[in-house]
Amino acid sequence: MADYAEITYAVAERIATVTLNRPEARNGYTIRMADELGAAMDRADRDEDVRVVVLTGAGKDFCVGADLSQGGFDFDPSTGPDAAWQEPAGRCSKRIFAMNKPVIAAMHGAAVGGGVTITLSCDYRLASEDSRFGFVFTRRGIYPEGASAWFLPRLVGMGTALDWMISGRVFPAAEALAKGLVHRVFPAGTVLDEAYKLAREIVETTAPVSVAVTRQLLYRMASAESPYPVHELDSKLIGGLGVSPDAVEGVMSFLQKRPPAFGMRVDKDLPSYLPWSGK
Amino acid sequence: MADYAEITYAVAERIATVTLNRPEARNGYTIRMADELGAAMDRADRDEDVRVVVLTGAGKDFCVGADLSQGGFDFDPSTGPDAAWQEPAGRCSKRIFAMNKPVIAAMHGAAVGGGVTITLSCDYRLASEDSRFGFVFTRRGIYPEGASAWFLPRLVGMGTALDWMISGRVFPAAEALAKGLVHRVFPAGTVLDEAYKLAREIVETTAPVSVAVTRQLLYRMASAESPYPVHELDSKLIGGLGVSPDAVEGVMSFLQKRPPAFGMRVDKDLPSYLPWSGK
Amino acid sequence: MADYAEITYAVAERIATVTLNRPEARNGYTIRMADELGAAMDRADRDEDVRVVVLTGAGKDFCVGADLSQGGFDFDPSTGPDAAWQEPAGRCSKRIFAMNKPVIAAMHGAAVGGGVTITLSCDYRLASEDSRFGFVFTRRGIYPEGASAWFLPRLVGMGTALDWMISGRVFPAAEALAKGLVHRVFPAGTVLDEAYKLAREIVETTAPVSVAVTRQLLYRMASAESPYPVHELDSKLIGGLGVSPDAVEGVMSFLQKRPPAFGMRVDKDLPSYLPWSGK
Repeated sequence: MADYAEITYAVAERIATVTLNRPEARNGYTIRMADELGAAMDRADRDEDVRVVVLTGAGKDFCVGADLSQGGFDFDPSTGPDAAWQEPAGRCSKRIFAMNKPVIAAMHGAAVGGGVTITLSCDYRLASEDSRFGFVFTRRGIYPEGASAWFLPRLVGMGTALDWMISGRVFPAAEALAKGLVHRVFPAGTVLDEAYKLAREIVETTAPVSVAVTRQLLYRMASAESPYPVHELDSKLIGGLGVSPDAVEGVMSFLQKRPPAFGMRVDKDLPSYLPWSGK
Repeated sequence: MADYAEITYAVAERIATVTLNRPEARNGYTIRMADELGAAMDRADRDEDVRVVVLTGAGKDFCVGADLSQGGFDFDPSTGPDAAWQEPAGRCSKRIFAMNKPVIAAMHGAAVGGGVTITLSCDYRLASEDSRFGFVFTRRGIYPEGASAWFLPRLVGMGTALDWMISGRVFPAAEALAKGLVHRVFPAGTVLDEAYKLAREIVETTAPVSVAVTRQLLYRMASAESPYPVHELDSKLIGGLGVSPDAVEGVMSFLQKRPPAFGMRVDKDLPSYLPWSGK
Repeated sequence: MADYAEITYAVAERIATVTLNRPEARNGYTIRMADELGAAMDRADRDEDVRVVVLTGAGKDFCVGADLSQGGFDFDPSTGPDAAWQEPAGRCSKRIFAMNKPVIAAMHGAAVGGGVTITLSCDYRLASEDSRFGFVFTRRGIYPEGASAWFLPRLVGMGTALDWMISGRVFPAAEALAKGLVHRVFPAGTVLDEAYKLAREIVETTAPVSVAVTRQLLYRMASAESPYPVHELDSKLIGGLGVSPDAVEGVMSFLQKRPPAFGMRVDKDLPSYLPWSGK
């Protein structure tokens, strides 16, 4: 843990837990936290022992967004950032976007501003009943970040995205659930356990390479002009299954009504021809 | 019917019924079934007497997905398919995508794997209360097919698509309805009657050429970069209505409060300049 | 008001109200109404005193769609429109799409055909309990317009869009709410007051430049191939905040728990590098 100052990282039962860990500042988001989240996601993605990542926050909030305790944003206002500067919430959301492993956000208390946009590329957002959310940018005189203009309409539709983003209002877990921002809402104090329960189910029942390809297929092909290029890629993927040990194991374990034991590895066995490789 | 071994095809009241017909194998999907579904959709699309297609399954299930009764997939694992090989679920979903006539899927029992992805390009999915669905690919060590990575997020949003596709879990009709995968759920034993009721309403109240253009407009323009090219095409379509007998009949029947009698034909009267013609 | 024959235009409390004003024809849509709506939106967009636009209809309906009182559409059927002709519902929807200020549609009674497609690019659609909606084009022998093939699937998903567009059926406010076409439904007679309440909240709590950029970010970036170009633009926007008076005021007013007083102006202070400027 010595590498991290603002998060913690731990692995157990093939699940990596990444915890935002500035509870005294309600996990206010900083450049350093962005650096550490990037490093943690890299580490989880490289480690074949890790199948699923759970992203959560220490203390009573998930994350209140950009840390404003210094009275402003985290760069020198007189010079500003240079042209290569990357907005820090988006550094996290795009790193998660590119992962080969699913990420489950377990959220409670406040998740506002960057505190919610960093989770928009997670595969799951699970919420505690006490959660509240807000895309508060217009109320702070700033702009949406975290590439949220790309993710949010895909999750909740353009009508709800415009409502939340233009009004900047804070809303409760029930509304987040009804509109599709979060997948499920749990009684206070139980969301992290529920995240582990879901993570274990993914570990026990699914093939790592299948999951890696599936989440990228959904993200990368959703913008295709038509279903035709998707069908072409599907045909290569399905056509290659004749030599896939996981496909054999998947069918056999199903026919034999036993748990599967998938042997293919994300670090070695991803199809080489995926068009998004290296991006 | 002599042409088909694994489906049946029948036309009545301007509605073609295409039935997956391997009830002894729970309508397990095969290359032959893909061939026959393609031929049946071609036939329905060519036949001006057919206005609507109903797609259903014989026996207690709609379709359990790829037929695994031979212990694996339907091609030679030692050689695999060649480069021109097309994944069979997508052959069906893309054929339906390109149709000029609406397709209503009437589903009951299991609709899993390819058994649900072949329906994602249908205009309607109606379900029986006893329906259950699953995008079970990650649990079989394989990949989503049927161009489902393109269709599913458009139907249910990216959050639900990731949940269903990554977990691979089977879910009931109520969840499919709540998330927008199916349009309506009916008491067991009634879904086919309800599909015919809907089909008859479309036959009686709508103009065939309008329906053909409308379903393609939605599918082909949804990926446009902005509304501007859509507005340009709308302007050509609406601007051409001055010489459209169906537009005259539509307005007249409305003003005269009588049922319309549209005379334009899909095989002759589609606008020639639609940008997707022949694709 | 002398400039307008078929709408009215009024400004109070920084809210412009644009009212379709042909109640004797149930606000049937005409070329002249399209001209006047365009002029009114231009005027509201230019006037720094206007922060929000409310779009409503006089009389018992919002708008019944194309005015058919002359027995057909509003151009000469023998010659038709020329190549530059623009379909009139889309002239309104694309003008609203390009605005720098949010538009709230306050709808009651019938909103069918062009009467609903002109509102699809509004930021909010609020409905009265007595509202009813219909994309009735297939029942009139015509085609969807208003660039609705682009907007509608983004609001309600492709499944619902196909259902409404293919069947052409008229549906009540409750269904419009459940599917996400409208944001909220209010008791009869109260929707305009509720629209003003929402408009005042936007005026009092949000920064005009933030709102202008936010609504365009959502619309223009939603079609991006991936989150990467969105993240690049976010980085420029957030990186520039060091010299933004509104960002300072947003943070300060938040920390001081007082209402904000944002000073930046849409007519002078929009970032110069937005990729959609002038389109």
